[in-house]
Amino acid sequence: MADTFTVQEKPLRRFCEQVLTKLSVPAEDARVTTDVLVLADLRGIDSHGVARLGRYVNGLKQGTMKATDQSRIIREAKATALVDGGQSLGQVVGKKAMDLAIRKAQDTSVGVVAVRNSNHYGIAGYYALMALEHHLIGLSMTNAGPLVVPTFGRTSILGTNPISLAAPAMKEKAFVLDMATSTVPRGKVEVYNRLGQPMPHGWAVDETGRSSTDPARVLNALAKRLGGGLLPLGGEGEELGGHKGYGLALMVDVLCGVLSGAATGLQVYAEEKKPNVGHFFMALDPTAFRPLDEFRRDMDRLARELKDSPKAQGQDRIYVHGEKSFARTEKFRKEGIPLDPKVVDGLKKIGTDLGIAWSA
Amino acid sequence: MADTFTVQEKPLRRFCEQVLTKLSVPAEDARVTTDVLVLADLRGIDSHGVARLGRYVNGLKQGTMKATDQSRIIREAKATALVDGGQSLGQVVGKKAMDLAIRKAQDTSVGVVAVRNSNHYGIAGYYALMALEHHLIGLSMTNAGPLVVPTFGRTSILGTNPISLAAPAMKEKAFVLDMATSTVPRGKVEVYNRLGQPMPHGWAVDETGRSSTDPARVLNALAKRLGGGLLPLGGEGEELGGHKGYGLALMVDVLCGVLSGAATGLQVYAEEKKPNVGHFFMALDPTAFRPLDEFRRDMDRLARELKDSPKAQGQDRIYVHGEKSFARTEKFRKEGIPLDPKVVDGLKKIGTDLGIAWSA
Repeated sequence: MADTFTVQEKPLRRFCEQVLTKLSVPAEDARVTTDVLVLADLRGIDSHGVARLGRYVNGLKQGTMKATDQSRIIREAKATALVDGGQSLGQVVGKKAMDLAIRKAQDTSVGVVAVRNSNHYGIAGYYALMALEHHLIGLSMTNAGPLVVPTFGRTSILGTNPISLAAPAMKEKAFVLDMATSTVPRGKVEVYNRLGQPMPHGWAVDETGRSSTDPARVLNALAKRLGGGLLPLGGEGEELGGHKGYGLALMVDVLCGVLSGAATGLQVYAEEKKPNVGHFFMALDPTAFRPLDEFRRDMDRLARELKDSPKAQGQDRIYVHGEKSFARTEKFRKEGIPLDPKVVDGLKKIGTDLGIAWSA
Repeated sequence: MADTFTVQEKPLRRFCEQVLTKLSVPAEDARVTTDVLVLADLRGIDSHGVARLGRYVNGLKQGTMKATDQSRIIREAKATALVDGGQSLGQVVGKKAMDLAIRKAQDTSVGVVAVRNSNHYGIAGYYALMALEHHLIGLSMTNAGPLVVPTFGRTSILGTNPISLAAPAMKEKAFVLDMATSTVPRGKVEVYNRLGQPMPHGWAVDETGRSSTDPARVLNALAKRLGGGLLPLGGEGEELGGHKGYGLALMVDVLCGVLSGAATGLQVYAEEKKPNVGHFFMALDPTAFRPLDEFRRDMDRLARELKDSPKAQGQDRIYVHGEKSFARTEKFRKEGIPLDPKVVDGLKKIGTDLGIAWSA
């Protein structure tokens, strides 16, 4: 990683916010969108970080992402709501919807909000993490454009459909699961392609629907819509549980797509002009079940039990989910955020096009 | 499977109910417990079917499972409840708790019920399926005795912690995901051990914490508490996403164990005399978000899109979750339920001990 570029958080945020406001996004919405992108980089999920700014710039320019928030509540009951995102920025819609779920959980111990007509909302974990500030459990899911091949299929129909759940602890870091339901993201196949290395079996299938170790072939098949795509968690067929990962991806599409009336499966990005991504948010108040400190104390106990247990041969540490990301955030806040020089070039180009100086 | 024994559903049910009532379980509770066990066999999950009756017989005899329902609601709000199972039969407690979640969903669109001090409740899918009769989405999870090794660990700490979600469709079968969060159940390792065959990598680790293909070694290490156990979905390490399966198992323990105040991780069966299994149930009303028929129609569309998509080389069918089980149920109801002769012998022995004639 000698050729990594390091940028400071503050100027990076300022740059992104300037880009968005230049494209008519109101200041507060630009702040929220930037916050989701930069937090992804701070947590080490650089595939969903500022590297994606160009995607939002294009969406805003083309009008597939509305610069001003068009979202509204369509149906509402005490503990539930359906939000129509009005093709606004996914981060703005997602934050508002999760805020609503949180308010409902504060009121009725649980809040469930489904969203349709939204756009790509960044990392699922951002919205689950929001619940922690209120001592709640947070759940966040989204569907996404087709990239994952169902078990025994040969074309991608489901998205990488992530699931994120966050739960507060006491002295230990909060538990923050934030996972795509595919074995790996597409970005990992791209990395192996750049390195010219064969991939492990279980990551992706080519146009025949069989597991392939050839990243170029998989990416080519995807690009030319010949078939192929990522494998669900558990890999090819049923031997290692690929049907389970496929089931989780489908569950996410049921809760995000079908429940809200958003697009599902192949339809998610079928109409490029009118994106219709669906999200699902839930907030749950532990104090409806037991005192908060008892809950947090037992979260600590379980985390310690896992972390203190004997390590596999050749390993010296067991992690609890979220731990690595919290450590990265702390480090990157101090030392700067490492970015791929190509990403920095892309950002600079966006700046040049919009007349915004790159000063990160 | 030439040496499979086929029994009819009705006499099998009658036998199980007689066994349970003989052990002082009230008739209705015996019916519910039997229903959960027999439905597992009917759906083809024979590891959780009547083969386990002996476990409940022992629990009832030893008093670790109370014959009469001791469960009670400890805390309750409009959309949530905490139930203490009072060490009653897990099926009786589970059914009552899911019924409560369903009533709450009918009232406030969503119901969440956490349970502590329960016992093994059979297949997670049973409770999720209950929601379908009410046109609701059902979610059911349970923690379980330690059997799964965390990523980079060498001892089993988490259970196979299953997740089940059921959602109604229209002409298509309902979507019923019912999956352990380990790659395979222990029963599959036992099958390979009986056959003297090596297992695929990614199923289990031995006492060194490294993936093993030797079922005898894994089972021996587990039995002697030397370490080892099942791998989470995604297998060993992080390359194929084992940390994701580990995260899902941990998520289930957070929602079932920590949230309810039940045992978690190693503690689930640590006190054999006082089991403290935790469950998590949720029911969600789709009509809080959109008209039921629109929801069901889109469930059909998504299922058809998956099933009608091109098949991988060498495959001729793509399934939606639950489909195989519904087909099995139909077949077994007509033709009888296939049981391992050893299971039948075990049941007959239970009958002989209790003075109940085997007539299935």
